[in-house]
Amino acid sequence: MSRYRVLVTLKPALLDSAGRAVTDSLRAMGFESVEDVRVGKLIDVTLKDGSKQEVEDMAKRLLANPVIEAFEVVETT
Amino acid sequence: MSRYRVLVTLKPALLDSAGRAVTDSLRAMGFESVEDVRVGKLIDVTLKDGSKQEVEDMAKRLLANPVIEAFEVVETT
Repeated sequence: MSRYRVLVTLKPALLDSAGRAVTDSLRAMGFESVEDVRVGKLIDVTLKDGSKQEVEDMAKRLLANPVIEAFEVVETT
Repeated sequence: MSRYRVLVTLKPALLDSAGRAVTDSLRAMGFESVEDVRVGKLIDVTLKDGSKQEVEDMAKRLLANPVIEAFEVVETT
């Protein structure tokens, strides 16, 4: 059994409207030092057996949209 | 300027229907060794100034739902 975490983030050039809404809410709640918020996805994948390369293929083909998102795969325990 | 990443995951006892759908899709695509997938959120917060404690407060009050989600705050660069 191997476990991997895929971290998916919106590319920096793109406007993140969800992040913008969170920024506004946090400031309205009194967290005035908030400069920026970006919202992404975290996907934990457990494999019976398989490699990090296989999870990178999953990310490219299904978990992330390579046109607008960047991703990183890390092995977890 | 300080940066933190908030990792939000659904508590293990809860059924993750999004994760179940991803598991099924990955297997249908030929990734047969997929055992389980859990989908969470990743929130990158940039502060003008502020501490990790402040970001933990944000997570408790807005970014995560403590009833069904667990979260972890890590400092990033």
